[in-house]
Amino acid sequence: MQNVIDSLRAGREQAVTTLLELLSIPSVSTDPDAASDVKRCAHWVAEKLTATGMPDVRVIDTAGHPIVYAQDLSAGPDRPTVLFYGHYDVQPVDPLNLWTNPPFEPTVRDNKVFARGATDDKGQVFLHMVALEAMRRELGSLPINIKLLIEGEEEIGSPNLAPFVSEHADMLACDCVVVSDTSMFAPGQPSIVYGLRGLAYMQIDVTGPNRDLHSGSYGGAVHNPINALAQIIAKLKDEHGRILIPGFYDDVLDLTVEERSDLASLGHSDDRLKADVGVKDLFGEQGYTSIERLGARPTLDCNGILGGFTGEGAKTVLPSKAMAKVSMRLVPHQRTADIAQKFIDYVHAVAPAGVTVTVTDLHGADPVLVPRDTPAIHAAVKALSETYNAPCKFTREGGSIPVVLLFDTVLKAPTVLMGFGLNNENAHSPDEHFDLDNFHLGSEAAVRFYTYLASSVA
Amino acid sequence: MQNVIDSLRAGREQAVTTLLELLSIPSVSTDPDAASDVKRCAHWVAEKLTATGMPDVRVIDTAGHPIVYAQDLSAGPDRPTVLFYGHYDVQPVDPLNLWTNPPFEPTVRDNKVFARGATDDKGQVFLHMVALEAMRRELGSLPINIKLLIEGEEEIGSPNLAPFVSEHADMLACDCVVVSDTSMFAPGQPSIVYGLRGLAYMQIDVTGPNRDLHSGSYGGAVHNPINALAQIIAKLKDEHGRILIPGFYDDVLDLTVEERSDLASLGHSDDRLKADVGVKDLFGEQGYTSIERLGARPTLDCNGILGGFTGEGAKTVLPSKAMAKVSMRLVPHQRTADIAQKFIDYVHAVAPAGVTVTVTDLHGADPVLVPRDTPAIHAAVKALSETYNAPCKFTREGGSIPVVLLFDTVLKAPTVLMGFGLNNENAHSPDEHFDLDNFHLGSEAAVRFYTYLASSVA
Repeated sequence: MQNVIDSLRAGREQAVTTLLELLSIPSVSTDPDAASDVKRCAHWVAEKLTATGMPDVRVIDTAGHPIVYAQDLSAGPDRPTVLFYGHYDVQPVDPLNLWTNPPFEPTVRDNKVFARGATDDKGQVFLHMVALEAMRRELGSLPINIKLLIEGEEEIGSPNLAPFVSEHADMLACDCVVVSDTSMFAPGQPSIVYGLRGLAYMQIDVTGPNRDLHSGSYGGAVHNPINALAQIIAKLKDEHGRILIPGFYDDVLDLTVEERSDLASLGHSDDRLKADVGVKDLFGEQGYTSIERLGARPTLDCNGILGGFTGEGAKTVLPSKAMAKVSMRLVPHQRTADIAQKFIDYVHAVAPAGVTVTVTDLHGADPVLVPRDTPAIHAAVKALSETYNAPCKFTREGGSIPVVLLFDTVLKAPTVLMGFGLNNENAHSPDEHFDLDNFHLGSEAAVRFYTYLASSVA
Repeated sequence: MQNVIDSLRAGREQAVTTLLELLSIPSVSTDPDAASDVKRCAHWVAEKLTATGMPDVRVIDTAGHPIVYAQDLSAGPDRPTVLFYGHYDVQPVDPLNLWTNPPFEPTVRDNKVFARGATDDKGQVFLHMVALEAMRRELGSLPINIKLLIEGEEEIGSPNLAPFVSEHADMLACDCVVVSDTSMFAPGQPSIVYGLRGLAYMQIDVTGPNRDLHSGSYGGAVHNPINALAQIIAKLKDEHGRILIPGFYDDVLDLTVEERSDLASLGHSDDRLKADVGVKDLFGEQGYTSIERLGARPTLDCNGILGGFTGEGAKTVLPSKAMAKVSMRLVPHQRTADIAQKFIDYVHAVAPAGVTVTVTDLHGADPVLVPRDTPAIHAAVKALSETYNAPCKFTREGGSIPVVLLFDTVLKAPTVLMGFGLNNENAHSPDEHFDLDNFHLGSEAAVRFYTYLASSVA
């Protein structure tokens, strides 16, 4: 393996040059005018995979942007099969005027490469391609069976991925999935995300009178839908953020002593969080630390609210309607359908007389917990710890990554979330960048991961 | 007096013909393109007053639309002086396509005249002009001293009236003010409004994090300004509508037994109100009837609320800001400045940690209670009861009429609110109309009012 690492180190300059080429393709999946660039990017990835020795490379059309798929199963059935997932599409670039350099003219400054897609996710996809190429070059073949699934619609919600995975479940069958599309917990601190929160996203609509009324003529005798909505929202959580919906916590899996200790060891700083978001005090459920509340405890947030007159100045309306969007982040083993129903029942139960309340279930995702005691996780921990010369930590993410749930459900395969980005690399903002140290170390970690995984089963 | 009444009855057709002429002038004060029509309307009113024998008629320019002022003080200092206030400007006509006839082509159907301004307020101004003309014609002179102040900016908030009244307080000095710009309590039921609620209109702005955050990444540790705002709003009133701001009710004047009995005798119907606004249940402070809550009890209503994502679908934002507009209707002897300060103090006291709350006082008006035991009120009661052959009732209005406060404060004169409109005459909507029975009876009531007022003091 040292040969492969040495080869990677010798080839760093060439790897960056090729990465800049990939980053110069404006594959903005949400922009209809960029469709041909998105397609061009798919073909660039496919050609590069072919050029580096992948025996079976395909660009597969979907109803939207194409999927790049490649596989090399020459390691044979006795070796583990890894499905690598990533995406070659990127976020839009607005506001363009806030970029120091144009987003598709990749520039290296301070050992960082600046471009749209640098960290999300082209840089992290390409470091695996570099790793696999070096292994093939130095070893003659790969020690594991590899399948690569690189889609072009991640930034628009992957509308065609779930049907593709379901239809090609046999082709995609694997022992584990590896994804590099997240961030390390901190610079120099390798980490693996093993828990992702789920989501139940609801809308509450409150209707009072059949038309907007004059608040002078009717106020005091007719209930106001905004006041009623505020009453309902105030009953969803207590003053410390504990959710009051009956049964909401029934299925919440408590953190183990080991997990709490692991999370505490991450060195999360409340002061840094307060400074980052600009608040004097944090807020949340008592009895848990911030880092526990962010990843391992369920929450409820209003995402939007609207009613009545919202312009400048004063208008004395008693409005007919008010609306709020409310979402709950879920943790194992809560189920989105169950929580949505409990929410609906509770809102109706606390709705005051004098108004009509409807609740709509807009969107949901179940939470995911990846088992930590698997060969893939052990291989990743070893690879990351060695590469960064620091013990790898386990973290839980507050948001959802729907593909993890998809692979878990359809392929019955656990996903290793091995990210090399950093939280401040502006993934969806101007001046997105990727630290080149993490790009190079990421390739080395990938080599070690594939190598240790092979030997763990062989 | 019977001569005058007979003369009015003989002249009904002519009066309607002239009213239609006035209603055909599109004096929409809010429309800059209509400025010359507004001016034309002022001159029409002034010329008509001159033609009917008013000795001193002026069209007085202001920074906005002109004020028509006329006076006849020939009754002499031993007779009472009445200031009549009205307005010749009208509301905009949108939506135009909902009018059965064009708004400035006055049409009589079912003994009602349909036109913008028919009831608000041209018809009600003109019935006084008709009454005064008939008195002068039949009696040779007026039994009272009269001053007429007819403005052209009522529908845009009378921006130039307060300075005008202050600057001309000597010219406008009077024993009482009479205004016909309100509605009767019900058809055939004459009524006098003697109480008007005041207003304290506030805006609450809540700021949480310094930018919109991803609710997955931060939800559970950072307070959400919408949830915080809902908590604050929910603490403003209890579940029955009683306001929880400390000291809020300190200065509220309780209804007397007589007042409660008077209000109960109005025949207000909760079922009719529910059907009108389309709700199953009414809502409000316990221990008071709806009619008491609407006019004689203070209230608090959210007039608008806004925060976060309010479009279609789901966006998982933990927003930086949320805003609500909240207004309180006040009753004697509450004071808007005092209530605004109590509101500000209370909102800050209940504001949760983790967010920053600012409260802005947008607008206010003190409530008004007109003394009922005055010669002017007695004259009005007698005039209205006789004219409609039904006992005149006393009512309290839920909204504010700022000029009443102005005349009370600057001229120290009580206002008699003697309205001849009906609530369903679409004052600010398409197909505004005025019942011609009330137009003609209004003129008769005005004659009786001026006559009884003269003899009450003479």
